[in-house]
Amino acid sequence: MCEPEGHMSALENRQFRLAARPAGMVKRSDFEFVTVPAGEPGPGEVLVRVLYLSLDPAMRGWMNAGRSYIAPVGLGDVMRAGGIGRVVASQDPGVAAGDIVGGMTGVQDYAILKAREVTKADPRLAPLPRYLGALGMPGLTAYFGLLDIGRPKEGETVVVSAASGAVGAVAVQIAKIKGCRVVGIAGGPDKCRYVAEELGCDAAIDYKKEDVREALARHCPKGIDIYFDNVGGEILDIVLSLLARRARVIICGAISQYNQAAFQGPRNYLSLLVNHALMEGFVVFDYLPRYPEGRQALAEWASSGRLRAREHIVDGLETFPETLQMLFRGENFGKLVIRVAPE
Amino acid sequence: MCEPEGHMSALENRQFRLAARPAGMVKRSDFEFVTVPAGEPGPGEVLVRVLYLSLDPAMRGWMNAGRSYIAPVGLGDVMRAGGIGRVVASQDPGVAAGDIVGGMTGVQDYAILKAREVTKADPRLAPLPRYLGALGMPGLTAYFGLLDIGRPKEGETVVVSAASGAVGAVAVQIAKIKGCRVVGIAGGPDKCRYVAEELGCDAAIDYKKEDVREALARHCPKGIDIYFDNVGGEILDIVLSLLARRARVIICGAISQYNQAAFQGPRNYLSLLVNHALMEGFVVFDYLPRYPEGRQALAEWASSGRLRAREHIVDGLETFPETLQMLFRGENFGKLVIRVAPE
Repeated sequence: MCEPEGHMSALENRQFRLAARPAGMVKRSDFEFVTVPAGEPGPGEVLVRVLYLSLDPAMRGWMNAGRSYIAPVGLGDVMRAGGIGRVVASQDPGVAAGDIVGGMTGVQDYAILKAREVTKADPRLAPLPRYLGALGMPGLTAYFGLLDIGRPKEGETVVVSAASGAVGAVAVQIAKIKGCRVVGIAGGPDKCRYVAEELGCDAAIDYKKEDVREALARHCPKGIDIYFDNVGGEILDIVLSLLARRARVIICGAISQYNQAAFQGPRNYLSLLVNHALMEGFVVFDYLPRYPEGRQALAEWASSGRLRAREHIVDGLETFPETLQMLFRGENFGKLVIRVAPE
Repeated sequence: MCEPEGHMSALENRQFRLAARPAGMVKRSDFEFVTVPAGEPGPGEVLVRVLYLSLDPAMRGWMNAGRSYIAPVGLGDVMRAGGIGRVVASQDPGVAAGDIVGGMTGVQDYAILKAREVTKADPRLAPLPRYLGALGMPGLTAYFGLLDIGRPKEGETVVVSAASGAVGAVAVQIAKIKGCRVVGIAGGPDKCRYVAEELGCDAAIDYKKEDVREALARHCPKGIDIYFDNVGGEILDIVLSLLARRARVIICGAISQYNQAAFQGPRNYLSLLVNHALMEGFVVFDYLPRYPEGRQALAEWASSGRLRAREHIVDGLETFPETLQMLFRGENFGKLVIRVAPE
């Protein structure tokens, strides 16, 4: 066993633990920030120095009680998060100290993970934070949601909400690769410029300034064939009123609703009936057996320059609650990541 | 040309014409009840003495302005309705006076229809009103919705709302034929007894008396694989909270909502995401090219005794507005039909 940073139990591990089920917007007092020893990996395990943490809208759902696609984070447990880091010590022959690996590290400095549940990442192929974004779960989410549920055909009209976000930006670009006309919805002129000029959307709509219904109707004169929905709420209802026949609405998320006390359902859902359309939900974990296919496609598009990405990096594990709030306020521009330690 | 009832232009034709777009519950003053000459069929047309009229939830939607799967009924136009009747005069070689035909007759005594748009019905095979119910559009609606969107597999759990209604009763029985466990939701003890004892549901839930959530959870311990929704509203939301993985929600109608000013969307739609489930809508007209297949299957099941049906017959064209209200109040028991004239 290799111990480059000295005896591991001496390593101080700061953790955010879930202290309360949040009501409305997540806040610092929903967590406890503690320091414990890092511990030592057992057989088949690795100890990872977390370098970057992924901040995802799904985190808000994990904090609620009740049945979902994944168990809620228990009160007192380390807050769940995906991360990427350097292996400090390994008790598994397949992983070596010094390797860069991604996995569900949790919001902490050090994580003990099962070696078979981490994925190696090559720092020479892409900047590490990208493995949490376009080349990680958000990229895979866009890949499987758009292709498996959306089934885009050349010439179809695709609308993506949160189009500058970690998932949306990849969905937009895959839709363009598949020959679709793509309209992105984002908040503010900078994000809209990015979506149109860098990601290649045929049109970008600033939901903070424009009349979304009017703009969508104008940019989608033949109706909307595919809607990749990350936001829910009013925009979902507007899109439903503009569906083309046999449209597919991909329910990936509903970030506008996660912190709302009263959840708003899509009032215009009977548009599904009128247009013989479907609305289908998914989470990326449903596609676990197909991750290698997805990773390979994303890596190839990235290396050929067809898949661009942008990360929004905030320094310091200690900022976690406030950085998470940025996500729900739409204040991040690109995949939101916390840098926990220098590479 | 055969004119068994004398000169046709002398025939008095009573009509309900749409006089106003209804607000809330449809009412008599939304129509004008007039008497005009029946008129004469032109080349390729037939004049039909309407015997029975079909009263359908979809009628409420046809009365609203705005785009849908079919143009709204124009103000001043005869109210749209399916009906069955006897050909009085024909100007088409394929249809003879005396033939019994079904078609979109409208709410009136006599209809002039294109011969190619009517369907012949055999009064020896089934009572005529059944051609407006289990063997007509409602039966076809259940057939295509359940089989094409629901894709039932043996042993799956199917829930049908408005299970004693024209569409629901057929959906229930086809689901049983396909080997599913079927739970029907209906209003009142008589309908529930009918659904369980005559239609063969494994369980019936009286939404007027029982706690639907508790009862569904109890009767569907492995979750709901298929929901055939005719009602929308609260029951849809409850079902969404009880979906099994990869569930299919068939949006056939939303009778609880058609007369509501504020349409309620399904608040629990993110259950689609959690369960990788889908919600898909349709109207029976989408399946026009497959009607012969559907009619044959329904007729075979009916003749072998596997498909039972019940009609609720109200006498008199003049009752139309109040009879239509019965439908939205759940006061009919079986397919609601107006007898316009004796056979």
